[in-house]
Amino acid sequence: MDDRTLLRIIRPVIGTDACSDDCAILPLPCGILVTSTDMLHERSDFPKGITDWQIGWMSAAVTISDIAAMGAEPVQLVLAIGLDDEDRLKGIVTGASDCCNQFGATYAGGDLDAHHELTIVSTGLGIITDGQPVQRRGAKPEELICVTGVLGRAIPGLTDKRFWKDLCEPQPRVEEGIAIRKAGATAMMDISDGLALSLYDIAEESGTGMTITGSSIPIPEDVDHSEAMTAALFGGGDFELLFCIPENSYQSLNLPCTIIGRVTDEPGVIMDGRILEKKGYLHHWYE
Amino acid sequence: MDDRTLLRIIRPVIGTDACSDDCAILPLPCGILVTSTDMLHERSDFPKGITDWQIGWMSAAVTISDIAAMGAEPVQLVLAIGLDDEDRLKGIVTGASDCCNQFGATYAGGDLDAHHELTIVSTGLGIITDGQPVQRRGAKPEELICVTGVLGRAIPGLTDKRFWKDLCEPQPRVEEGIAIRKAGATAMMDISDGLALSLYDIAEESGTGMTITGSSIPIPEDVDHSEAMTAALFGGGDFELLFCIPENSYQSLNLPCTIIGRVTDEPGVIMDGRILEKKGYLHHWYE
Repeated sequence: MDDRTLLRIIRPVIGTDACSDDCAILPLPCGILVTSTDMLHERSDFPKGITDWQIGWMSAAVTISDIAAMGAEPVQLVLAIGLDDEDRLKGIVTGASDCCNQFGATYAGGDLDAHHELTIVSTGLGIITDGQPVQRRGAKPEELICVTGVLGRAIPGLTDKRFWKDLCEPQPRVEEGIAIRKAGATAMMDISDGLALSLYDIAEESGTGMTITGSSIPIPEDVDHSEAMTAALFGGGDFELLFCIPENSYQSLNLPCTIIGRVTDEPGVIMDGRILEKKGYLHHWYE
Repeated sequence: MDDRTLLRIIRPVIGTDACSDDCAILPLPCGILVTSTDMLHERSDFPKGITDWQIGWMSAAVTISDIAAMGAEPVQLVLAIGLDDEDRLKGIVTGASDCCNQFGATYAGGDLDAHHELTIVSTGLGIITDGQPVQRRGAKPEELICVTGVLGRAIPGLTDKRFWKDLCEPQPRVEEGIAIRKAGATAMMDISDGLALSLYDIAEESGTGMTITGSSIPIPEDVDHSEAMTAALFGGGDFELLFCIPENSYQSLNLPCTIIGRVTDEPGVIMDGRILEKKGYLHHWYE
């Protein structure tokens, strides 16, 4: 089983709405609060050679990215840190604190624990005071499918030093997420598990299909083309935003981004006329 | 090093305020939000024989207890679950969901991950719309020191079946915490690491001392007296509230609780005329 399969076990217990987005949503009288929590641990999430400072940065960044993907402003982050070695603590909290400062959130402490494998759970709060969060389920046929930035930059970092910082110091698209929400996007998520799975997620939540053009996907120019496409579609670790937006709303979006396709009526995700394989970064359970 | 020592590493990075209470505090225009995060894992937190449902309950309860200790109303809980065995998921989420329902919070999903050791991080939000949270640092000399409930009931559960549910299904004191805040308590925390450490924590944060009477501590009557006192003072696992309150405010508190002593000028914690040992439940790091 993978985590998307396990979600089917949770849904009947806690309700479908709670499982469908990067963040949980809590309406308050003065705004809408969004909450995201992410578990990262040494063996499955941190590349070999990453520094403790980068581990802290990454732990904060993945959560801030989920908040950005709702079009919200990050306000607070707490970390639960299960430490295998106390000497790592200072680097980790400094990295997390620097990332929070960069993106406008307060790093507000958390919990400390001993753990045989370094394990960090990062939980963040964001707020929207001038509208509604952008969920995954609002896409409608005929809308444009767009992405921010250049995809497929994280995975090459495993072997190519030029991309090491892209892998270890992801930059959440906070300003971009807010601008995209305000322009009228109908669905959004970050592509941290790869573009392909993200397209399927939005399509399934929205009850639509997606059709995209491979050559329009923005990938690095100085990398083998086929490897870069594989990293972008199926690799994970990129923290760009994928969103759907009506064509007339797109005109008002003053942001560098790339149109890669259109939302369709028919279920499924099509690239260049063929079904796009539904695979990407999935947590697989120990058997 | 233990977790209280490690806090000294974190404080210079993120500021003293963020490390001093059960919850982080976020003022919003419509109320004050409090956030707590707790990491629990198999080997150090879950007694042998505990069911998955009880693990889920306990994971939610410890966090809701931190919210209660600020005098706040729990509103939302998210869980990051690192699963060693997918078959445990349903029991865990059902237990957490039942605990949330019992205490008025929405269980709003979270994150799923694979982990060699079952690891759960529970993060909760609470809100106060009619006042300020009760922190640890507000106690003043002459005030009464009080506790809710009966202490020392969790640790005996390790060997005595009569207390098994006290150990595995803690009951956060949500209504009590709100009533205590409204009555005008000046300092409060839950005693999950034992009464002794909690007295020291409030004394140190408040810049006061504490003097208590051993015979006034409420302990179970049908347990060996010395064992029960040790469990109450140094054992941990009880989720009752410890608070300080001016004598005239106490009169307005319509709640069963027990006065165990008085706040003093002199630093330190004194029980029956002697210094109370500063020990309790501490996470110790692997060497």
